[in-house]
Amino acid sequence: MNPIFADLPTTVFEVMSRLARETGAINLGQGFPDSPGPEDVRRAAAEAVMTGWNQYPPMMGMPELRQAVATHYAHHQGVTLDPEREVMITSGATEALAGALMAIIEPGDEVVLFQPLYDAYLPLVLRAGGVPRFVRLQPPHWRFTEAMLAEAFSPKTKAVLFNNPLNPAGVVYSAEDLALLARFCVRHDAVAICDEVWEHVVFDGLRHSTMLNAPGMRERTIKIGSAGKIFSLTGWKVGFVCAAPEILRVLAKAHQFLTFTTPPNLQAAVAYGLGKDDAYFTGMRADLQRSRDHFAAGLAERGFAVLPSAGTYFLNVDIAPLGETDDVAFCERLVRQHGVAAIPVSAFYAQDAIRSAVRFCFAKGDAVLDGALGRLDGVA
Amino acid sequence: MNPIFADLPTTVFEVMSRLARETGAINLGQGFPDSPGPEDVRRAAAEAVMTGWNQYPPMMGMPELRQAVATHYAHHQGVTLDPEREVMITSGATEALAGALMAIIEPGDEVVLFQPLYDAYLPLVLRAGGVPRFVRLQPPHWRFTEAMLAEAFSPKTKAVLFNNPLNPAGVVYSAEDLALLARFCVRHDAVAICDEVWEHVVFDGLRHSTMLNAPGMRERTIKIGSAGKIFSLTGWKVGFVCAAPEILRVLAKAHQFLTFTTPPNLQAAVAYGLGKDDAYFTGMRADLQRSRDHFAAGLAERGFAVLPSAGTYFLNVDIAPLGETDDVAFCERLVRQHGVAAIPVSAFYAQDAIRSAVRFCFAKGDAVLDGALGRLDGVA
Ligand SMILES: CSCCC(=O)C(=O)O
Ligand SMILES: CSCCC(=O)C(=O)O
Repeated sequence: MNPIFADLPTTVFEVMSRLARETGAINLGQGFPDSPGPEDVRRAAAEAVMTGWNQYPPMMGMPELRQAVATHYAHHQGVTLDPEREVMITSGATEALAGALMAIIEPGDEVVLFQPLYDAYLPLVLRAGGVPRFVRLQPPHWRFTEAMLAEAFSPKTKAVLFNNPLNPAGVVYSAEDLALLARFCVRHDAVAICDEVWEHVVFDGLRHSTMLNAPGMRERTIKIGSAGKIFSLTGWKVGFVCAAPEILRVLAKAHQFLTFTTPPNLQAAVAYGLGKDDAYFTGMRADLQRSRDHFAAGLAERGFAVLPSAGTYFLNVDIAPLGETDDVAFCERLVRQHGVAAIPVSAFYAQDAIRSAVRFCFAKGDAVLDGALGRLDGVA
Repeated sequence: MNPIFADLPTTVFEVMSRLARETGAINLGQGFPDSPGPEDVRRAAAEAVMTGWNQYPPMMGMPELRQAVATHYAHHQGVTLDPEREVMITSGATEALAGALMAIIEPGDEVVLFQPLYDAYLPLVLRAGGVPRFVRLQPPHWRFTEAMLAEAFSPKTKAVLFNNPLNPAGVVYSAEDLALLARFCVRHDAVAICDEVWEHVVFDGLRHSTMLNAPGMRERTIKIGSAGKIFSLTGWKVGFVCAAPEILRVLAKAHQFLTFTTPPNLQAAVAYGLGKDDAYFTGMRADLQRSRDHFAAGLAERGFAVLPSAGTYFLNVDIAPLGETDDVAFCERLVRQHGVAAIPVSAFYAQDAIRSAVRFCFAKGDAVLDGALGRLDGVA
């Protein structure tokens, strides 16, 4: 057995969801909304499975979806993509990420990772033969500086893996932050693998800017997006990769032997959904922002120190003021004694973990959030 | 760029399908049926996407589908599987295969491969760090012997990757063949990764026997199956992995970071479909057998030397009697001059390729097969 996987725990999101099911806890751990997702998009999938194509679609994705992705990003990010040579469909963002690392990394290559990091990143980098170099981000601002990047980049840097908006921090990096990172990528001839699955989930009038638009990055960015997060259909597992033709050509070779292709009826439905008007995306953001505000206010009333969240489905609570020094023990108590599942942010660190932050998913209806708030009475 | 993928061609199935689309050729290359697939199974998917769960299902698969897989194999193969600890759902058989190799292989481990091999196998073995050791099978019988296995296995053998029924050969290995391979696996403490996606597609009253039932293999077999092939819905990408708990535990760790999970509406529909009565499976086989016989007779009438096919969607033609020595050139001519796409079997060899066989997919309606036969008039 390969030790990278043999010694790995089950992902914390799965563990917490299972524990929530078993204990009857309200699940604010794993990031998924409790809405069923847009009915028209689901209906498009139902119709396509009855009247459309159910055999292998093209390995790169259905032409209508690749075109829809290009049109969508032209409209929302002002970036011009050739759907034939710069867009590929994958079975979710995780597959896109795995394929990108398999395709880009050779054993010994260094990969710059930002902690907190999504728990798939490190095992995938290691399994690809990469050597991780960590940048350690901290609450409350989770910012990186030139000095931090200078320490992490080296002549061996082949790639950087960057998640923006950043889960679990809820921070949205600005164009200036991206420009700083871009300077290092260009200087070290590194590729930026950009997990931008939360691109549409930003609040307070902020706009996400894609790394594709950062100076010098158009030819060295692998942009990864996800229909699951855009349409609140996290089970669908339809992802998109956008990259320059020379890069995408190689990523396609990894993709063709990881999943080969993605169910055509879901592709057709996502193609339809990406064309929805601005009101859909604005409305989705407004709903989530309202949930964030509602939940944050409820936590604050109960004495929790709530950290700012500018994007994603998540906000964090600083447990240090409660005298807590162990986020894992705190979450264990929360789920078992109080019936609320949350995620200890230390699970997002491979080393030198922050132990003072606990992540809650607020992408839920008011009844669920209020139920959780009720159970949190007296905890802080 | 990693050279394993950077230097890889696009899969021959995709290349041929694209060429068929571009030239208007009848596509008997890539293996997919031209039927829409069972309507009741598709309706189950449509209903689930409208009324069921569309968020993350459990990482190991939906309990109802894992139970359905266990029940299905108890009935069809007489094997007892614990759905909780021995069954996992993946996004197609390709993901299952990629995950199994990533989980099992450490750099330097040897992996025994049988040529002809599906074109994903070798790059995945290499990318996992494995060292391939080939067994070379040949028409018309494609049999392996004790001597051939003795040459391929070594003290470094960690795994064997075995496809039965074998694509493209159309051969179904007997319980005796499996027992021979099993003896080598047991002696060398090797795991058998068994691609059994064609298990239901066997003809002439033959029954497929799973490697799980071979002597000593229950604890060392990774059985991979696919709903796409069972229900003629090749685009759905719902696969199953069955293995002993100690093995499956590690495979799950690879799966959780390759795709994490598989669309729940398709899982629900496959759970429904696996419970279909024997008449469905018998009828599917009978239909395909009739298509095989029809197409084989038409080819024979036209002077082609048709090799026997006992399973899969495929049969092969021996082009040596036509004085042809280059299957690739022959297929190029077939698609461009005669308007029929087929697959050169040399594409399934990594070395010492057979150049005398050409594969046709007969899983098509009579009109399509007759159209192709008409275009093949005078070729032989
Ligand atoms: C793949 S389960 C994790 C979902 C998610 O993005 C999160 O909870 O952070
Ligand atoms: C993934 S496309 C190949 C389909 C198939 O099994 C074949 O044609 O051999």
